Amino acid sequence: MAKHCKEAINMVSSSSSSSSLHPPPPVPKELYALNRSKLIGSLRQHLSSSNRPLKGFVLLQGGEEQNRYCTDHTELFRQESYFAYLFGVKEPGFYGAIDISTGKAILFAPKLPAEYAVWLGEIKSLPHFKEMYMVNMVCYTDEIVEVLHSHHGGSEKPVLFLLHGQNTDSNNFSKPAEFKEMEKFETDLSVLHPILTECRTIKSDAELSLIQYANDISSEAHVGVMRRTRAGMKEYQLESMFLHHTYMYGGCRHCSYTCICATGGNSSVLHYGHAAAPNDRTFEDGDMALLDMGAEYNFYGSDITCSFPVNGKFTSDQKLIYNAVLKAHDDVISTMKPGVNWVDMHKLAEKTILESLKDGGILIGDVHEMMTERIGAVFMPHGLGHLLGIDTHDPGGYPKEIERPKEPGLKSLRTARDLREGMVITVEPGCYFIDALLAPAMENSSTSKFFNHKEIARFKSFGGVRIESDLYVTSNGADNLTNCPRQTWEIEAVMSGAPWPLEKNAADSK
Amino acid sequence: MAKHCKEAINMVSSSSSSSSLHPPPPVPKELYALNRSKLIGSLRQHLSSSNRPLKGFVLLQGGEEQNRYCTDHTELFRQESYFAYLFGVKEPGFYGAIDISTGKAILFAPKLPAEYAVWLGEIKSLPHFKEMYMVNMVCYTDEIVEVLHSHHGGSEKPVLFLLHGQNTDSNNFSKPAEFKEMEKFETDLSVLHPILTECRTIKSDAELSLIQYANDISSEAHVGVMRRTRAGMKEYQLESMFLHHTYMYGGCRHCSYTCICATGGNSSVLHYGHAAAPNDRTFEDGDMALLDMGAEYNFYGSDITCSFPVNGKFTSDQKLIYNAVLKAHDDVISTMKPGVNWVDMHKLAEKTILESLKDGGILIGDVHEMMTERIGAVFMPHGLGHLLGIDTHDPGGYPKEIERPKEPGLKSLRTARDLREGMVITVEPGCYFIDALLAPAMENSSTSKFFNHKEIARFKSFGGVRIESDLYVTSNGADNLTNCPRQTWEIEAVMSGAPWPLEKNAADSK
Ligand SMILES: [Mn+2]
Ligand SMILES: [Mn+2]
Repeated sequence: MAKHCKEAINMVSSSSSSSSLHPPPPVPKELYALNRSKLIGSLRQHLSSSNRPLKGFVLLQGGEEQNRYCTDHTELFRQESYFAYLFGVKEPGFYGAIDISTGKAILFAPKLPAEYAVWLGEIKSLPHFKEMYMVNMVCYTDEIVEVLHSHHGGSEKPVLFLLHGQNTDSNNFSKPAEFKEMEKFETDLSVLHPILTECRTIKSDAELSLIQYANDISSEAHVGVMRRTRAGMKEYQLESMFLHHTYMYGGCRHCSYTCICATGGNSSVLHYGHAAAPNDRTFEDGDMALLDMGAEYNFYGSDITCSFPVNGKFTSDQKLIYNAVLKAHDDVISTMKPGVNWVDMHKLAEKTILESLKDGGILIGDVHEMMTERIGAVFMPHGLGHLLGIDTHDPGGYPKEIERPKEPGLKSLRTARDLREGMVITVEPGCYFIDALLAPAMENSSTSKFFNHKEIARFKSFGGVRIESDLYVTSNGADNLTNCPRQTWEIEAVMSGAPWPLEKNAADSK
Repeated sequence: MAKHCKEAINMVSSSSSSSSLHPPPPVPKELYALNRSKLIGSLRQHLSSSNRPLKGFVLLQGGEEQNRYCTDHTELFRQESYFAYLFGVKEPGFYGAIDISTGKAILFAPKLPAEYAVWLGEIKSLPHFKEMYMVNMVCYTDEIVEVLHSHHGGSEKPVLFLLHGQNTDSNNFSKPAEFKEMEKFETDLSVLHPILTECRTIKSDAELSLIQYANDISSEAHVGVMRRTRAGMKEYQLESMFLHHTYMYGGCRHCSYTCICATGGNSSVLHYGHAAAPNDRTFEDGDMALLDMGAEYNFYGSDITCSFPVNGKFTSDQKLIYNAVLKAHDDVISTMKPGVNWVDMHKLAEKTILESLKDGGILIGDVHEMMTERIGAVFMPHGLGHLLGIDTHDPGGYPKEIERPKEPGLKSLRTARDLREGMVITVEPGCYFIDALLAPAMENSSTSKFFNHKEIARFKSFGGVRIESDLYVTSNGADNLTNCPRQTWEIEAVMSGAPWPLEKNAADSK
């Protein structure tokens, strides 16, 4: 026993200063060329089927570095996601074109002034970018008109397929490329966006390898944070440990999203952690923590939530809620495969949670009836999960033919599609005690009866539990890319110093 | 000796898991009220001297949360600096007004929808903000017109003093407040900006305490990074350690600026570290590191550079360049006091460095003549230092009456003012071997003679050294707010495990 303890301590201290995942893997160079050829294939198919010529150019404008308000404080640049998908360019100020007839890719780099070398670094040559991003040609941004015209041939104006379309999560529109003398081209604003968005929903092996790495380093970081969590800490200290692990050992400078480090009652605030609720609570013995944190590796993200008691030991109430969510998480994962509809998965998660709450004495009555009355949405107002990739909420959840459900809970779903092989999607059921939703439902004459008012009072300041993993849909099921302790006993073991993954015999002795 | 070693190791390991500066100090609540009353005092004085009535309102619009491109990815919000100065509001979407006749402050908070409570957290009450930001009144943003009119009295349109003016570092203009029905007010776009900017140049004790804390935690973090630097690491690992220390123990979620972690030749790239040069080099035994990193605490920043050999031991060449810069740093600091002109300080730094380079056999000839030929700017193309506060490059460096110098090096100065008591300004001399500047100067017929071409060849890939501290100008001198090892032997001692500050007898045994 004493020996075991000592080993556990060694493990903890070694894991605090290193990682089995360091150094991070190289990025497959052909990744963006593959993404481009997939797009061109789809585009040609679309143009053929509309009897349009297989000519013209896809043209995208990359992002620009931004200053903070009127100052010279520059925000750390992160490439626009569609541009990153096709070209992988890390630098600001680029344009990129793909010739539809030949599939050739041309990057347009900004011409940098000589002082750049003094202040910002080596001015890289055009061949450097050609080699770096595996394109066919690199020119300067002031040569767009000339280069595209000369590639086009023929006397009519070349057609530019520009990116214009609505993001179904933000409702914002992408910004079509703009440059001088655009009037020398025809432009098409409708064809590109849906086709490119659809390409992004199915991940190649190269893309998957990056999402897997982002998951590996983030899973490891979650485990490290869990181990070092102690009552009396500030929530932001958990965030800091996570960020440090993923950057120090994973080279992840960006996160997929602002870390949500919620403890106690804060864990029922679904998007906690932003500037107005900045992970600044001191947490106490007896609190649950809900940590939703994911690193981004070379543009590709991860999105992982772990929930656990900050003192390392579940109470029976905590176990009840946690296991309700875990069962939903596991049931959904084991049901997922191509063709399965995501709204059905959401309902499966809801039903599983409601059943567990009923078994636990918190709810009363017929679960089917509860479903009809949308009681599930009282406890889980958010959607079950979303596509994941270069964006945390990757686009493509609602192509034109798919309608967004209108019911509470379901309307929050970021996709209502059928699963397809190659999709990466999060599974993140949750169960929260949110006053703003519970109180009206418990007062409402048609839904009051489902609640065991006496029992539920105990959970007033409980907060909530969410368990989130990233899944890759295979030909006949789904692979979990996330590797965190999920069973309550696994969490307790890891938090008391056991290595992760648990050793075989430790796992058997459950 | 063995005992000493052991202690050193204990020191290192304990400093890696804690900090004497944790928890961070509370923020003086009266800070923003003081800033406001200073502004109103200056404004009234200005209006009186122009025979204008002491009436109307200062009105500022706070920042808004930003999405990344078309997605729903929200960037972590950081308040606009002028708004932060007057109101300290951490949340997006506010307006703030100050009644010039009474000095009373009114905040206008955004009316949040009921779903906010579910997704983003508790909807805070107006009295909460009144207490939190010590203002006289809090209303909703849709009440601006009504509230200001009712406070105004009288039948003429109230005058709004809006923020409009150019930042002399970015050349960008601040954005005056905008809201519906602005036509119900007169607006003045010229008075506020220069007066408010001037207020920001002189720091109150409350402001100073925050800048001091940002310096304390950042200095400690620099020392921690120095100690853990080992050849074979990646530059970003140094950044990660710094960020972790200042967030984990200092609660600093924001940095003053993107960390510059430059090693080897990269250390001559003045603003290294951005997305196109992202601190991603693996450094080697024999390299120098130049780390320019500063945390921000409750809006107030720090800006600190340490330069050191990554293996912990200076070579004689490294010592030569380092000590040239250190002497400039120290000479400037000991000369600083109110009335001293900053351009003169820049020249003092240049002269000191040129003299040292001459003593070291790198330059030849008359230093005064070198100055006239602007050889100083070949080795230090940036300005000596800048005002520091809520912005890293705090505004106010060039009020209307001060002209920007035109000579190489001097034209990069972010201020050409005389020092005044209460200013906080960085002192950051540097000496770099930048091919793009050296080669032309060494070829130029009138400057070639100053260079010892044979000696200088040795420094081709040396990179550069910068030493940067933050100074507070007192009534008769200047206090250094930064506390990092600066002498080469201090750096070597700390890197081999000695505690910082060095113990008295260790310091004596130099
Ligand atoms: Mn998610
Ligand atoms: Mn500086």
